[in-house]
Amino acid sequence: VYIVSDLERGKEPILAFTGDTLLVGDAGRPDLFPDQKEELAVKLYASLRRIEEIGDNVEVYPAHGAGSLCGKALSSKLSSTIGTERMHNPALNIHPEEAFVRTFLEGMPEAPDHFSRCSEINRIGAPPVYLLKRPTAYGPREFLDLAQSGHLVVDTRDQLPFAAAHIPGAYGLSLKGNFATFSGWILPPEKPILLVTDSPNEYQAALRGLHSVGLDRVVGYLDGGMDAYEDSGYRTARLECISIVELKERMDAGELLVVDTRLKSEYDKEHIAGTLHAAAPDVRMRYKEWEKDKTLAFICNTGNRSLLAGSLMLNLSCMDTVINVIGGTTAWAKLGYPIVKGD
Amino acid sequence: VYIVSDLERGKEPILAFTGDTLLVGDAGRPDLFPDQKEELAVKLYASLRRIEEIGDNVEVYPAHGAGSLCGKALSSKLSSTIGTERMHNPALNIHPEEAFVRTFLEGMPEAPDHFSRCSEINRIGAPPVYLLKRPTAYGPREFLDLAQSGHLVVDTRDQLPFAAAHIPGAYGLSLKGNFATFSGWILPPEKPILLVTDSPNEYQAALRGLHSVGLDRVVGYLDGGMDAYEDSGYRTARLECISIVELKERMDAGELLVVDTRLKSEYDKEHIAGTLHAAAPDVRMRYKEWEKDKTLAFICNTGNRSLLAGSLMLNLSCMDTVINVIGGTTAWAKLGYPIVKGD
Repeated sequence: VYIVSDLERGKEPILAFTGDTLLVGDAGRPDLFPDQKEELAVKLYASLRRIEEIGDNVEVYPAHGAGSLCGKALSSKLSSTIGTERMHNPALNIHPEEAFVRTFLEGMPEAPDHFSRCSEINRIGAPPVYLLKRPTAYGPREFLDLAQSGHLVVDTRDQLPFAAAHIPGAYGLSLKGNFATFSGWILPPEKPILLVTDSPNEYQAALRGLHSVGLDRVVGYLDGGMDAYEDSGYRTARLECISIVELKERMDAGELLVVDTRLKSEYDKEHIAGTLHAAAPDVRMRYKEWEKDKTLAFICNTGNRSLLAGSLMLNLSCMDTVINVIGGTTAWAKLGYPIVKGD
Repeated sequence: VYIVSDLERGKEPILAFTGDTLLVGDAGRPDLFPDQKEELAVKLYASLRRIEEIGDNVEVYPAHGAGSLCGKALSSKLSSTIGTERMHNPALNIHPEEAFVRTFLEGMPEAPDHFSRCSEINRIGAPPVYLLKRPTAYGPREFLDLAQSGHLVVDTRDQLPFAAAHIPGAYGLSLKGNFATFSGWILPPEKPILLVTDSPNEYQAALRGLHSVGLDRVVGYLDGGMDAYEDSGYRTARLECISIVELKERMDAGELLVVDTRLKSEYDKEHIAGTLHAAAPDVRMRYKEWEKDKTLAFICNTGNRSLLAGSLMLNLSCMDTVINVIGGTTAWAKLGYPIVKGD
């Protein structure tokens, strides 16, 4: 934690950079290094005790915010004050130490693969982005050859065009979803990456997202985008998209095996009866369970995480028909269809 | 034909507005009114004789150009001169009158439905666009209700997102294709139209295109676009997209009935062996022929006309699996696959 004073006005602290300790609405995660997690939780408890004494007026600027998996209850506000956090942040109000440690080690969100990796990168220091080799533009033939010889293909397009046609083996990582987190989570960091994007803006956004999770090995992109690949005539893969209305009909008819790919906490809170749970990245470990004769459908809240799950399933399993449910659990709830609620 | 002089420089004509008579590389179509076609062809021959005497220096500005079906051999250049046309335009070099009449009544391109309709509109005078009622924004529920009660749904999105998910009954009229011509050709003019577009720019382009073919009854559009509809959970329809590589495999395995939806002249010039021909709009008349047990695939040169054909097939037939081939005959040729050539 860095504490800052404005010496022109006085020596009293006016703001604090709290890093991974005090966050807005939450605190950092001590559970990410399983070997040391109790020790880290105890240290975090002690750190928070010192931080809350800095003074209620002091502004708080943490290193993580909403949309990441860096906490359980992160606020969408990016900064706060010590006073406000003392009043409203549960992490500052769990005592004694034993209770705090238990809370911060149990029921934590899934830990994306890049969390432990990035700690190491941050310790050493990441290379400056401007020193990275600029990605190369590849035509469809070269691009496909590289894809087939071990390069990862990251396709950032929207769920509908990706579902209709994508390069076989591509990861469906739409920029409309939580692109950086899921890229860091599921992409093997040692492999070179190729990008398929819809526009130069999306290409830049994808690069930034990958850099932010320590994935610097972007070696190329598809020149002319998917249009150029379509014009080449080379093979494409696809997911079938179905609406919630059709999902319900086909579930009622017993035709589908439906896997909910949101986080465990979201599923536990409420889900559609008869659906299984597996966070999208877990398809990597669990795909064999679902290679049965029933048609497999993935759902999330909107269609982006289920798109990723569907693309992983196509890549790993022997199935060539996989369904992505569009509209997701949000649309299911909107239609007033029945939901199983947790505690 | 209007002949224009620049009186500040002299009385000699310097340019001519040739309307539907002399076009760049071609002449107008006398065949569009079957009852009078011989008479019109004879009159056209006489008109061209008078036009070619105006003077080689005179600039020619016709009322139609490339991309339309207003001629067989329209140049992509929008204007020309009498001298250049006398030198290179076949329409000015077919004699005697009998030969000209024969040439201009035989082997003419398909005549879109709106050609005869628009002649009448042009004679009366179309209403000014600014006097038309402004289309209404409809949410998904109202939009779907209107679609199910006789409104036409025109979806202008690209082929991939349309194929992945569209409102049941929608016409797949991508703005990437020849939007205005095919809209005029296949949309019943007496019915109110609803638009699904990706952006305000595309919405404006679609409106302009529809107005240009005399379709002024656009009563509404989908508020929030297809994203909003996806979020509603309501039913969607889909086409399956396959690449040329997969098309060839499945044709070789005898699995597919493939219909080439380009114009007859394009098909006659070269086509894939084993494909049938039907211009996309003719699906309206011929869909019953193809409701067999083989899977039906539509192809054109790029995927836009076959998309339209696929959407017509879904709307009219009892089939719920229809394939759109992406990349089209252009990609087929690029891959060096065998082609049947005409004379």
